[in-house]
Amino acid sequence: MGRALGGVDVTGKLIALEGIDGSGKSTQACRLAGSLGAELTFQFGATEIGSVIRDLLLSPTYSELDDKTEALLVVADKAQHLTEIVHPALQAGRDVVTDRYTASTLVYQGYGRGIDLVFLKSILQFATSGLEPDLTILLDLDPAQASNRLQQKLDRIEDATTKTSFVSRIRNGYIQLAAESPDSWVVVDASGNIDEVAIQIEAVARKFFCERTL
Amino acid sequence: MGRALGGVDVTGKLIALEGIDGSGKSTQACRLAGSLGAELTFQFGATEIGSVIRDLLLSPTYSELDDKTEALLVVADKAQHLTEIVHPALQAGRDVVTDRYTASTLVYQGYGRGIDLVFLKSILQFATSGLEPDLTILLDLDPAQASNRLQQKLDRIEDATTKTSFVSRIRNGYIQLAAESPDSWVVVDASGNIDEVAIQIEAVARKFFCERTL
Repeated sequence: MGRALGGVDVTGKLIALEGIDGSGKSTQACRLAGSLGAELTFQFGATEIGSVIRDLLLSPTYSELDDKTEALLVVADKAQHLTEIVHPALQAGRDVVTDRYTASTLVYQGYGRGIDLVFLKSILQFATSGLEPDLTILLDLDPAQASNRLQQKLDRIEDATTKTSFVSRIRNGYIQLAAESPDSWVVVDASGNIDEVAIQIEAVARKFFCERTL
Repeated sequence: MGRALGGVDVTGKLIALEGIDGSGKSTQACRLAGSLGAELTFQFGATEIGSVIRDLLLSPTYSELDDKTEALLVVADKAQHLTEIVHPALQAGRDVVTDRYTASTLVYQGYGRGIDLVFLKSILQFATSGLEPDLTILLDLDPAQASNRLQQKLDRIEDATTKTSFVSRIRNGYIQLAAESPDSWVVVDASGNIDEVAIQIEAVARKFFCERTL
């Protein structure tokens, strides 16, 4: 029932929630982890090292950050996150719900910043030892509606995402990735209220894991 | 006379000093930059963003740092260093002497930590847009003598390097790289005193640039 990761079998399931800023990922990841009894985590910044990387990526102090540096830092966070949090949990047989995973890098750094997708896939493969989520749930939302939901002060990356063309590229990138992997991605309409969307997501997750032998 | 870097010609020359810890690179890089009237820089940590990365890499606080995370952070520093310091200087026609460059990653993370060399070369190519030094000077020194020179408190990476087998792998890695690129690498015996080694290095650099049309 397990998959081999770096030569070690893992038996827990990995579920990633993805979507543009304001799509409700964090709230829904928390709700889903609670209803499944799974471990909840997030990218980026979940580890001590990752939190330093997150500060570098988001603080307006570092406005000189090069797009290539940004991509490498984002992926460095993923390597540390896998080693410290995701891998040990899966290996111990616990299911994990993560608020963002590798798809975020493909859409933000690839579709968003224009870094070559093939190259990004190769460094993500390196960072994660090829561990892909069993299920990725895309919370799809119109960028205008997402923008209305965002109340807090914008950080460095989100500042760029307020530009409509950037957010549209992100959204389209997600839709493209979902279309490429219909066996492991499900798109959920995130325009409803929190309870409505949570019910859809839980139904998707339970259906996915009850109808397949993993 | 220039080379194309990211579509932009650069006319300054780039000289890298490489070697194991304790080989005298920093002192000699400073002396060489002074005698050539070149800009002096170093990896890693020369930029504001790089200094945060350097702290992550060297502080004993982050003992959980994964080898893959380390490699990605080291290369992220290089991307930022190129964009902020090396590229603008070369483009303005200034020569640059750098205390460590991409070869350090190949030997420390590749020969030292065991990360795949082909993969490392691909991310270094990404980070530097393929900009290689015109000349790399390897300060070769016996690990035992280098160890005797190191007086200061050891940091996280240097702590590992005190293990003889690790330092020997680093030294051998450097010798291998020098052997692979005899047209752009020169090996200097770093066992003499500072003045003796400085004279050798300056002679190598002047001979290199006076006898070739670059």
